[in-house]
Parts: sequence; C-alpha cells; structure tokens
Amino acid sequence: MVSDIIFSVKRKREICPFCKPDKERIVYEGEHSFALFDLYPVSRGHTLIIPKRHVESIEELEDIEWIDIVRTIKVIKRGLENLLKPDGFNIGFNLGEPAGQSISHIHIHVIPRYAGDTKFPLGGIRRVVFEIRDDILHLKKRCEGNRLTDNEIEFFKDNLFDNE
Amino acid sequence: MVSDIIFSVKRKREICPFCKPDKERIVYEGEHSFALFDLYPVSRGHTLIIPKRHVESIEELEDIEWIDIVRTIKVIKRGLENLLKPDGFNIGFNLGEPAGQSISHIHIHVIPRYAGDTKFPLGGIRRVVFEIRDDILHLKKRCEGNRLTDNEIEFFKDNLFDNE
Repeated sequence: MVSDIIFSVKRKREICPFCKPDKERIVYEGEHSFALFDLYPVSRGHTLIIPKRHVESIEELEDIEWIDIVRTIKVIKRGLENLLKPDGFNIGFNLGEPAGQSISHIHIHVIPRYAGDTKFPLGGIRRVVFEIRDDILHLKKRCEGNRLTDNEIEFFKDNLFDNE
Repeated sequence: MVSDIIFSVKRKREICPFCKPDKERIVYEGEHSFALFDLYPVSRGHTLIIPKRHVESIEELEDIEWIDIVRTIKVIKRGLENLLKPDGFNIGFNLGEPAGQSISHIHIHVIPRYAGDTKFPLGGIRRVVFEIRDDILHLKKRCEGNRLTDNEIEFFKDNLFDNE
C-alpha cells in the first residue's frame, strides 16, 4: 500500500543520521547538499558531501541536485586546499554494503591526499578491492588521529568561497 | 604568451591517451563523455568515464558536462548490473599523483563490487590511504584476470539503455 511506503520512507528519515545531522557539525551548506567532516577521517580533512534529500540510489538524484553536489565538492576542495595544502584528492562514493557503504543515505567522500601518506602512491581509488590485513585493526586509532582541531574547523568554515 | 598556452594545450591533447582513444575500446558514447573498460581492471567490469574535452581539473568542467558524465555513469552502472550482477559499486576519481592519478585527463572509475571480493568489506573508498604490502606485487596479474571476454563486451554494448 502507498501509505506503507510513505510510512517506510518517513521512518527511514527519522533514523537516518544524515537526515537530521548535528547542526554544529555542518561546515558548509548549499541549496541541495551540505558538508561535514567525517568522524573517522582516513586523512586530515576527510569530508562528506551529502544531498539534503534522503536518497538511497544515485538514480533518484535530479540534475539540479547533482549540480549542487558538484558545486559543494568544489567549495570544500578549495577550502581544504587553503587550510591543509594537500597534494591531491580522492573523491567518490560507495554504493552497497560490499562496496563499503555503511549509511544508506547517499554521500560522497572527499579525501585529501598528502605526498608520502602511503608507501605506494599507486592505485588511488583502485585500492578499494585490495586486501587489508592487520591495518584494519589500527583503523580506529589512525582515524582518530586525523580529526581536525576546533580551531582548524573554525578557520575552514570562515574561509570558504562559494560566490563564484 | 597566449600562443604558447594554446600550443601547450594542443600538445597535451596530442599525447593524451584519452583525447585520442582507440575507437574500438569505447563501449558507450554520450554527448560530452564516453566510457571504456579499464585495461587493468581491479574487478570484473571496472570502467572509466571520461569527458571528451581535455580537462585536468574538475573546476574546468561545465555544468552541462557534469550532467552528461552523471548520465553516462548511470548508463554504465545499469549495463554492468545487467551483465555482471554486482553487489555494489565504488565510483570516484583520483586527483593528483599522490592520489593515484596516472593520466592527467580527468576520468572517473566505476568499480563493480562483489560480495566476498575482499576479506574485509569495510572501508570502500576509505581504503585509498591504506598501506599495501605484498599485494601490490600481484596487482598486474590480478588485474589481467579481471578483463572481460570479447563476448561479454559485445553483450554489454548491445544492452545499454540510454533512452530514459
């Protein structure tokens, strides 16, 4: 029944961490998307770009939402360049649990990269399918060390350029 | 001088493998972008989405090009779902050598994922910064085993839906 479907969507929104994000964590807000720093950043400045609407597949996103997402990516990229001077970025998303997606509300990872941050710079996004052995055990600790300080977050928010 | 810049852009296009791709490798062509299977696929069906115009930064891409890129991603994703029945996808790009980018002409990786393809499904795109130890040594061999057969490529090209 339609009412079941509506209830189901409403229910999902209620329990979705990206539908009701902690306002204080939002570092930038566009028309149809917003950005916040990942709580378990794999590098310093690891940011998530999130459409405001609760969608669980890329097919549901309208062109106008994509354009806004791209715009938010560019604003965040420039802000991270100003603050952290990274040497590159990996930008992309995981679709489905076997691809590493943990929150079903679509979101895009913006991961700044720094020369020498891995022994083998080759690969980039290709690495999604590599085996991880003992590294996974240290994941939480490593990620926690990548969190930005409150001062850095303030500087970042105060120095975003979105008027181009 | 402006003429030097023009020469430089022209020269780049001449040596860029994505500006003059082997026509036979193109599996789908949109208005502003096209798709081909990666020569060193990290999973079966690993595809690249490439803007037709030679751009080396995401800031250079116009909205109309982004919309076309997103459209091509959706066409390819559906085609891969039909052919290979993956359980998920990682979709994204590498910007800069320290991020794993090897060809400067911007391109997006579409990487189908299969349940059980890694021991630890966690992570997805977060894995770009993990250490790779001996796995890297087997990279070439592993990638070669992921190449699709000619029959599969034909089926794929014949079963793309782009009229929606």
